[in-house]
Amino acid sequence: MTDAIAETVRLPIGPVDLTTIETDAAPGFSGTKSDGKAALAEIADDLAGLQERLWAEGTSGSRRRILLVLQGMDTSGKGGVLRHAVGLIDPQGVRITSFKAPTDAELKHDFLWRIKKGLPEAGYVGVFDRSHYEDVLIAKVRGYAEPEEIERRYDAINDFEAGLAAEGTTIIKCMLHISPEKQKERLKARLDKPEKHYKYNPGDLDERAHWSKYQNAYEIALERTNTDLARWHVIPSDKKWFRNLAVAELLLATLRGMDLQWPLADFDVEAQKQRMFDETPPA
Amino acid sequence: MTDAIAETVRLPIGPVDLTTIETDAAPGFSGTKSDGKAALAEIADDLAGLQERLWAEGTSGSRRRILLVLQGMDTSGKGGVLRHAVGLIDPQGVRITSFKAPTDAELKHDFLWRIKKGLPEAGYVGVFDRSHYEDVLIAKVRGYAEPEEIERRYDAINDFEAGLAAEGTTIIKCMLHISPEKQKERLKARLDKPEKHYKYNPGDLDERAHWSKYQNAYEIALERTNTDLARWHVIPSDKKWFRNLAVAELLLATLRGMDLQWPLADFDVEAQKQRMFDETPPA
Repeated sequence: MTDAIAETVRLPIGPVDLTTIETDAAPGFSGTKSDGKAALAEIADDLAGLQERLWAEGTSGSRRRILLVLQGMDTSGKGGVLRHAVGLIDPQGVRITSFKAPTDAELKHDFLWRIKKGLPEAGYVGVFDRSHYEDVLIAKVRGYAEPEEIERRYDAINDFEAGLAAEGTTIIKCMLHISPEKQKERLKARLDKPEKHYKYNPGDLDERAHWSKYQNAYEIALERTNTDLARWHVIPSDKKWFRNLAVAELLLATLRGMDLQWPLADFDVEAQKQRMFDETPPA
Repeated sequence: MTDAIAETVRLPIGPVDLTTIETDAAPGFSGTKSDGKAALAEIADDLAGLQERLWAEGTSGSRRRILLVLQGMDTSGKGGVLRHAVGLIDPQGVRITSFKAPTDAELKHDFLWRIKKGLPEAGYVGVFDRSHYEDVLIAKVRGYAEPEEIERRYDAINDFEAGLAAEGTTIIKCMLHISPEKQKERLKARLDKPEKHYKYNPGDLDERAHWSKYQNAYEIALERTNTDLARWHVIPSDKKWFRNLAVAELLLATLRGMDLQWPLADFDVEAQKQRMFDETPPA
């Protein structure tokens, strides 16, 4: 089942038309919501086991790591994926970096400067909650950068990601794809519940008014940066349970594909056993 | 039940004799191992709910945060606590900092310099996997600092922690307390299983040989730095399930004691609802 989901959400290289990708589908999965939740719980052990191997490799000199990039419109569920999919992994081996609007200090640097500071170390699963893609999405829609600069950034991103891949980073890029109706429903729910008011920002409606421009900016960004070394996945995300399952399955499929090995001891195991056998017990 | 465990593991202020604290006990809990695991699962929702409030407060200007300090001999289970207790919390709101042997660059600064860089931001649950206490533990046992410098550090730590408390940090300090026999059993298990070799370091046996010196250094450190603002807890940790439950219960009791409130909206909720009602649906 794993590979089925991972394969159906992988975006083919070439032109992108998001209107042809359903937001409320569950491609590659034939079960119900409760089947989906059960499937997520079932892969938790495999995920945790493989992540420990990645971590173990990192302790013995391997340069390998994973970078999961999460993008999507407001309320598409980046936080939910962190909680329910990434949350299945040992928190010691996870590094989450959330990118908000750049600060004045960050704006004085190239757009990738702050991104590079948030990269995971060897052995880690790094997760970007928003990313350098904001610099070709909101920056394009809102005109925060000139068209020539936006143009330059697509290539800069591809070079940057190719460099990460060469250094040992396996990149998984996900766009959490929702409908405008689903966004409205979720924004409304935030307004209706006082305990969710903290998640609501009046600016969310301003961005929402530019929905089609954002979809267009996503289509261009996805097309221009969908490379063999850093593939995009479009995750139908109207169904929260499918969204969480799909990202977890993608992580699992990625870890499986890495052929991770437990490192060999760099010490004499038998000698250490003997030493422990011979020791005077500590008081 | 919660408060029972949290209270029994709290170290009274005054002289400390670790030999009087059992390592394989389950104080404040009357159930079996499987009861303990069930109790841990049962508090997960409460923990997550209160942590979200802490997070929400942080988004609206509160300075409050939690710092959980984990100390203990090798194999005492700091990693297990991170996985099974801290792992219950939304990973977005957790910041784990692991302190290894200081680098040459770090050694050029005061011992607290690198510690301060790892502190959690407002709204976070920060966790130190080892901490500034190493600077009065291994540093004392192995003579990495002069006795006068060690002496200075106890007071420096108390001043530092008092400052954190004044800034809004609730500090929970835990010593995971195991017997030397349990450590031997766990080290041996690491040698017996090839997939655990990566966790074994021949230096572990060198440190183990100084067991009683370490216990003595812990007793002094615990006594000197056990303050009302930053209280120590000694967690019997021979039983992994109790150790995990105890730390989770401590976190929960701490969050409960903070009287966390959902922030009030800083916008006009009704006006936003109207705006959403009036909008032209995005294409």
